[in-house]
Amino acid sequence: MKALQNKILTDGIVLSDTVLKVDTFLNHQMDPVLMKEIGEEFASRFEDAGITKILTIESSGIAPAIMTALKLNVEMVFARKRKSLTLQDGLITSKVYSFTKKEENEISVADKFIQEDDVILIIDDFLANGQAAFGLMDIVQKAGAKVGGIGIVIEKAFQDGGKQIRQSGVKVESLARIQSLSNGKVTFVEDKPTVEV
Amino acid sequence: MKALQNKILTDGIVLSDTVLKVDTFLNHQMDPVLMKEIGEEFASRFEDAGITKILTIESSGIAPAIMTALKLNVEMVFARKRKSLTLQDGLITSKVYSFTKKEENEISVADKFIQEDDVILIIDDFLANGQAAFGLMDIVQKAGAKVGGIGIVIEKAFQDGGKQIRQSGVKVESLARIQSLSNGKVTFVEDKPTVEV
Repeated sequence: MKALQNKILTDGIVLSDTVLKVDTFLNHQMDPVLMKEIGEEFASRFEDAGITKILTIESSGIAPAIMTALKLNVEMVFARKRKSLTLQDGLITSKVYSFTKKEENEISVADKFIQEDDVILIIDDFLANGQAAFGLMDIVQKAGAKVGGIGIVIEKAFQDGGKQIRQSGVKVESLARIQSLSNGKVTFVEDKPTVEV
Repeated sequence: MKALQNKILTDGIVLSDTVLKVDTFLNHQMDPVLMKEIGEEFASRFEDAGITKILTIESSGIAPAIMTALKLNVEMVFARKRKSLTLQDGLITSKVYSFTKKEENEISVADKFIQEDDVILIIDDFLANGQAAFGLMDIVQKAGAKVGGIGIVIEKAFQDGGKQIRQSGVKVESLARIQSLSNGKVTFVEDKPTVEV
């Protein structure tokens, strides 16, 4: 998605070979026009997947997810994230390890919001090691529903979450796939070097 | 806002005289069409306030806030909530006590996202004691910016946050104002008893 790539190039800050800061438009401050375009793009890429509901995880997934839900005309539910949950009835939970924060969180969704006949589109802002995506897929599976696909705003394609999920047979659509953050520079997977003839 | 009141009456669950559960459409599962209408309503109520940015707080404020931002064509920033923050440069922080969870959270916004010439519209899903709203107002004031108004999806008008904020001279627009949750029944402030002639 060109508008997103351009925004990453102009406003993203490469903090290290693995960390890209996009807090000016995606995960702290948010650009609503870009969020709407992202929602429309996800909706278009999954329009034939029979999606009945969007699932995301607080907090940065919510804006792209609500825009996608609006375009696909389905409801959205977001998983809550807690360090530890007191036991509560009616919740489906999964564990998610954050490599960035070096801590394990429990994520949860009220079981009444995912039915067995649901086809769920999972939306998230980032995909790196895939921990959050696997946790959300686990919740969908525990509910007996089907994962209809995964939509990611920015995929760090140099980490292997995307590869693992695709190998499991789930369709993953990432709007920007980053090949490398080396030398302080963002290179996208699509940036094929020009072949000289 | 009639569509919201109707949704509260059909889908809201009164858990006690002070607690209304709206997790089917506002703060766990979200209805994207209603969120869009809420955003349009906030935008219309504050269209002459010279708003330059929307400020909300994770997580349930994000969807109504991004829809409002889209309609007003300004950016949105959400405050992060943590039990305790390690000292970090570049953050404006405030303390918010949650009566529901009986704990104090620190909320924070990167200082680069609020400038002195900003006129901020604060959006949140609930207003009861006003703790979150006061925390967000505190952040705006610490940044040297101006609070242009506060937009609330559901105000518990029987608690005094709204009254306190209005007395301080800030315009508060609540799309549904609940007078009472007594006897398991939602009564709105607008529900004037019919006067017999």
